[in-house]
Amino acid sequence: MIEDIIRSITPLDDNLIKKAYERIDNLTKPKGSLGRLEEIAGKLYAINDGRMPVSFKKAVVVFASDHGITAQNVSPYPNYVTYQMVYNFLSGGAGINVFARHSRSDVFVVDVGVDYNFGETNRLIVKKVAKGTKDFSKEPAMTIEEAKKSIVAGMEMGEEVYKRGYNLVGTGEMGIGNTTPSTAIMSVITGVSLDLLTGRGAGLDDDGLKRKKEVIEKAIILHKPVKNDPLDILSKVGGFEIGAIAGLILYCSSKKIPVVVDGFISSAGFLISYLFSKDVKDYVFFAHRSNEQGHRVFFDFIGEKPVLDLDMRLGEGTGSALAFFIIEASAKMFLEMATFESANISREMK
Amino acid sequence: MIEDIIRSITPLDDNLIKKAYERIDNLTKPKGSLGRLEEIAGKLYAINDGRMPVSFKKAVVVFASDHGITAQNVSPYPNYVTYQMVYNFLSGGAGINVFARHSRSDVFVVDVGVDYNFGETNRLIVKKVAKGTKDFSKEPAMTIEEAKKSIVAGMEMGEEVYKRGYNLVGTGEMGIGNTTPSTAIMSVITGVSLDLLTGRGAGLDDDGLKRKKEVIEKAIILHKPVKNDPLDILSKVGGFEIGAIAGLILYCSSKKIPVVVDGFISSAGFLISYLFSKDVKDYVFFAHRSNEQGHRVFFDFIGEKPVLDLDMRLGEGTGSALAFFIIEASAKMFLEMATFESANISREMK
Repeated sequence: MIEDIIRSITPLDDNLIKKAYERIDNLTKPKGSLGRLEEIAGKLYAINDGRMPVSFKKAVVVFASDHGITAQNVSPYPNYVTYQMVYNFLSGGAGINVFARHSRSDVFVVDVGVDYNFGETNRLIVKKVAKGTKDFSKEPAMTIEEAKKSIVAGMEMGEEVYKRGYNLVGTGEMGIGNTTPSTAIMSVITGVSLDLLTGRGAGLDDDGLKRKKEVIEKAIILHKPVKNDPLDILSKVGGFEIGAIAGLILYCSSKKIPVVVDGFISSAGFLISYLFSKDVKDYVFFAHRSNEQGHRVFFDFIGEKPVLDLDMRLGEGTGSALAFFIIEASAKMFLEMATFESANISREMK
Repeated sequence: MIEDIIRSITPLDDNLIKKAYERIDNLTKPKGSLGRLEEIAGKLYAINDGRMPVSFKKAVVVFASDHGITAQNVSPYPNYVTYQMVYNFLSGGAGINVFARHSRSDVFVVDVGVDYNFGETNRLIVKKVAKGTKDFSKEPAMTIEEAKKSIVAGMEMGEEVYKRGYNLVGTGEMGIGNTTPSTAIMSVITGVSLDLLTGRGAGLDDDGLKRKKEVIEKAIILHKPVKNDPLDILSKVGGFEIGAIAGLILYCSSKKIPVVVDGFISSAGFLISYLFSKDVKDYVFFAHRSNEQGHRVFFDFIGEKPVLDLDMRLGEGTGSALAFFIIEASAKMFLEMATFESANISREMK
């Protein structure tokens, strides 16, 4: 499945973006004066093969998983908060639920590796690869087989939202400890030092931050992940939700569904997908710049700008749900604004 | 009227902000992890006297006016685009109309000084001070009496939205040439050099930018506006829509209605209101960082952060309408997110 999906991802047609700007530059505003919204509209138009969607059916897919690396005390929170938060998602009380309702989006909660038996639960989608990853300070986080399974879990969610007609999809995640594998992945792929990349996650103190950095550093020395091999990196220092995010991005890109990449952990998932196919960059929008330190490094590396910059660092897909509104605004600008001709406005400069 | 309104503006009660954080810090998220949204929620709660609004009735008030300074060739567009754009607002085809519909807000269009006879128009609110300002490279832009009238026009619009039950109000404007008076106002009040402050407005080329800077510099030397005197500054180098924005902010602050200040021109209006009463800062949110060069200087001066940063420079209130969504999200976070107790989630750190 993975190979087929990746082969079917194609780069955007630049001519479609040019065609979009023929209209954008004819709307009643000084050229370029809607800034990022114009760029977003151009990309949306091209992703949708030269049509602008008149409405968006929106979903945030939240992948939850646990992390063996938490044995090294890299998070201030206990592991069981992961499953407790899954219940919070299912009952509608988490940040992502609030913002998804606000932006009129649906939330899909997917267990790809939570260390807990949820038993009978109505609304949880179970694609559990294993009950959490291994402690990657000692052994690889997962097998290559498990890494593939996590990616396939994300691709299956892509297929699900595609079949249900969603045309704007956001990534989200929950997993106590998951800034640690995300930082490791970013360090391997960007080559940037852990001093610049490592942040406080959910709220580490100075000692914790130092410990986290050392744990990642030693793990990279131990496993020597191969810089350009996404499966190798994911299996050695990754997480199941990170693989699933990569799979979701790959699948949606192959079906030309725009994906909103949430924050720091989702960006690590994006980088895994990017190693499989550079073209995924054409199908994503980055929701926001997280307050997690390494996210600045990520944006420098990938050469893109986030939609929002609100000092958020909650994850869950909260940034995605908020960014949806701006992306929809771009589409409405394109579709609903009058042109100079239709409004009888002088477009001549003096 | 002006004096009475200003006297009734009071600073926010810090205890109310603390009380808001008692709840915010008990919501199911790491402390501080919703960043700017938490700050916005705290301020909203305090503005509303310790209650969080469960819904928002939202309006953008767009003040339109013309500028005599355009005789000095400081804008690439001809003056008559101002009135043409007013018709565009009234027929619903401008950027502000699109974004206001998207954020479920109402638009009020107010003529405070357009150099045009609109005749019978249904939806235009006419509070015309004069048919445009004078060319302030040669004489004061307006009399002190006219400056007061423009402020009162804004206050009357504040009264209007207050009486109609709006509880979230955005500023907006239209006026060919109005980055020139705005830059002049900012230069006088912040003391920052015109080299740093002067931008390209709707799209000046290098020659135009140089000319604009010289025009403002000479006008400041000619009129010597008094740094701390808002009426003096407004009358000498201001504009009617800028005075009206100041009046709207002052009135809404006096009635504890939060105001979203749009972009560069609205920020100049804010500075005029700020000279009347420093407390207006407690009642405003800054919608976005405009791509107009001087807006960075403004944010450094006032020590605040914008909600959005999307390289926009259209004005009209477009940033206000988009920022409404984030401000509402903050309120919903406060009201709808589960607490650690209600969701049975461990708040203990390890």
